Amino acid sequence: MKQDIGDLALFGGGKLFPDPLHVTRPTVGSKDIFLDHVNAAWDRLWFTNDGPLVRELESQLERELQVDHCVLTSNGTSAMSLVIQALGLKGEVILPSFTFVSTAHALQMIGIKPVFADIDATTWSLDVDHCRALITPETSAIIATHLFGDTADIEALEALCRSENIPLLFDSAHAFGCTHHGKPVGGFGVAEIFSFHATKTFHTFEGGAATTNDEQLAARLRKMRNFGFSDFDHIDTIGTNAKLSEIHAAMGLTNLAVFDDTLIANAQSHDHYAKILATFTGLTLRTPPEHVASNHHYVVAEVDHDTFGLSRDNLLQILHAENILARRYFYPGTHRCAPYAESNADAHLPVTENLADRIIQFPGGASIPQEDITKIGWLLAFLAANANEITARMNRLA
Amino acid sequence: MKQDIGDLALFGGGKLFPDPLHVTRPTVGSKDIFLDHVNAAWDRLWFTNDGPLVRELESQLERELQVDHCVLTSNGTSAMSLVIQALGLKGEVILPSFTFVSTAHALQMIGIKPVFADIDATTWSLDVDHCRALITPETSAIIATHLFGDTADIEALEALCRSENIPLLFDSAHAFGCTHHGKPVGGFGVAEIFSFHATKTFHTFEGGAATTNDEQLAARLRKMRNFGFSDFDHIDTIGTNAKLSEIHAAMGLTNLAVFDDTLIANAQSHDHYAKILATFTGLTLRTPPEHVASNHHYVVAEVDHDTFGLSRDNLLQILHAENILARRYFYPGTHRCAPYAESNADAHLPVTENLADRIIQFPGGASIPQEDITKIGWLLAFLAANANEITARMNRLA
Repeated sequence: MKQDIGDLALFGGGKLFPDPLHVTRPTVGSKDIFLDHVNAAWDRLWFTNDGPLVRELESQLERELQVDHCVLTSNGTSAMSLVIQALGLKGEVILPSFTFVSTAHALQMIGIKPVFADIDATTWSLDVDHCRALITPETSAIIATHLFGDTADIEALEALCRSENIPLLFDSAHAFGCTHHGKPVGGFGVAEIFSFHATKTFHTFEGGAATTNDEQLAARLRKMRNFGFSDFDHIDTIGTNAKLSEIHAAMGLTNLAVFDDTLIANAQSHDHYAKILATFTGLTLRTPPEHVASNHHYVVAEVDHDTFGLSRDNLLQILHAENILARRYFYPGTHRCAPYAESNADAHLPVTENLADRIIQFPGGASIPQEDITKIGWLLAFLAANANEITARMNRLA
Repeated sequence: MKQDIGDLALFGGGKLFPDPLHVTRPTVGSKDIFLDHVNAAWDRLWFTNDGPLVRELESQLERELQVDHCVLTSNGTSAMSLVIQALGLKGEVILPSFTFVSTAHALQMIGIKPVFADIDATTWSLDVDHCRALITPETSAIIATHLFGDTADIEALEALCRSENIPLLFDSAHAFGCTHHGKPVGGFGVAEIFSFHATKTFHTFEGGAATTNDEQLAARLRKMRNFGFSDFDHIDTIGTNAKLSEIHAAMGLTNLAVFDDTLIANAQSHDHYAKILATFTGLTLRTPPEHVASNHHYVVAEVDHDTFGLSRDNLLQILHAENILARRYFYPGTHRCAPYAESNADAHLPVTENLADRIIQFPGGASIPQEDITKIGWLLAFLAANANEITARMNRLA
């Protein structure tokens, strides 16, 4: 542990963690269960193309998420692309800037203009009034994001989309296992899109899904993920390869079997941070409101430079030097990233821009040992106590 | 075995194979090697995002294919899409109609018009004269296909593309392990695109790759397959998720370790068919020319209705009833499939259309037991000997 600011790795001291500590590391359930599934697939020599493991995982997820149809895909972005194309979206689509860049990319690639709306300063959900102001005759949909284990302002967005007669989609990559007024995320809007990337609280190594209660949409997505094949050798629509493999589905079945435990472990990590951050001021842990049961997978805090004494970016630099790979999601906001920055040079999204400068994500989730959180907490308290001295030294080095 | 045509499954007899026999079934190497890689990934908790197994497989493939850069992707179609976008193709792209529909889809999805050229009647390679005739000021590339373990007319296509100053790409999904005048497929044109789907002679369950000797293109592909990230949290280009997982790479490493044996077994299956089909007339096995070392993964024959006595589609119907899932690649030609048929209603591609009506692919490859080929051969000879009687009975049933 650090006795003096000279012991900080940034100033030449030893690293607090010998190996890089990522913001999440994959939860894995029982290796025996996983290998049983793998061995069964190996014996069947059936590794992809609508195999029994994919079908079983789809039906388990439909039950878990209380939704009629779950269409598994190779990853979350391919699920998003399929839904966008299956619905025939075109022209403009409104989405938050404060979200992962993949949704904007999926639109831009097929010639749809992503129109970036701001988020609400309190809920961090897509700002419904700003969305309303951005709607034009070209607007073909709104894609909202459930952010950091919280849910979007679903009712207000539904009302807006109903009155405008445009589909509402949700990027639910962060919200697997969350409920909104008791109802699981997965059944809201026209469709919800999940990522099951290894960094997610429920994962299939790489993978994703679209969930929907619209039977026709689900059927179309199933065709489109397999090149548009409607039967053995007949193509009746455009499509691509967005199939999840059996081996990836095996990881999903393995992780789903322990998902209740994962949620408990996530909450324990989150609670541990909450107790630590309460011992000093300047880092405010993001906690969802009462109507949301969070998956607690994301440990996100706002850095108040004045109170904490260190800027977010200085804090990040110090942590990275210690091998704590905290992140500044979603800096600088998608509207400030290539290839969107140029056409959005005049856009001003004050809440997004402000938040992108203040937010930090700490290593959390089910797989991080509690003692690692304790060490990070100790370091954060040390930084808080010595913030002015550290800032001065960083300024001298800069 | 069938004594009488009434014993054919189509006419109520027992099926020759109790379980469906697909045209290919996955080759798998040593399960121990595969599980060693899986266990190592599990211990590292590193399952995707440029992990050590993906890197190792990329370098082994670069050596195997004698090419500077191999960029692994989630599947072959995502590799094709990435290359198309990384090169900034637009307007029109010329490709064969007689190829898998995924390339046309990859173009169409991003607003590029697929322009379908015919193939040469002898080589089945993209017809260079027809390509030349189809070139307009909008043409931004030619994408040729190495078909059925043969290679395209590489030199003539290179000369045309050089003179027109447009890039030449190859869809090499069928040609892993083939050589053209002694040089491995993988290093021709601006880039070659491979599918490593489970049906391919070398596979990673689901997967693919782009190979190129262009360092800048490779660097751009690597960024684009991971959302355009150029470093830890900086996006500097459009991109998507086209990452291959570590577990899929593990299958690749396992299969590559036995690939020499796979080629030998493929050739044995192919030879076995060649001997059988030589005992009667009407089914002509496709065999590449001398300058090509084929991977022998595809057992493809032309059905001469007059000589064999059965039409291709009747033959297919009889085989399917016996659980032999032979296929009529690429029926009816991509220009006759949705969503291309309407805009190509006036297109006439005589060689493609003729071949699409005559060709059949039989179950082949390294994993098919020789006794299964013997049984299929016996059945084919039986059908040849009783073709007229069978046709008459099928006509009565129709």
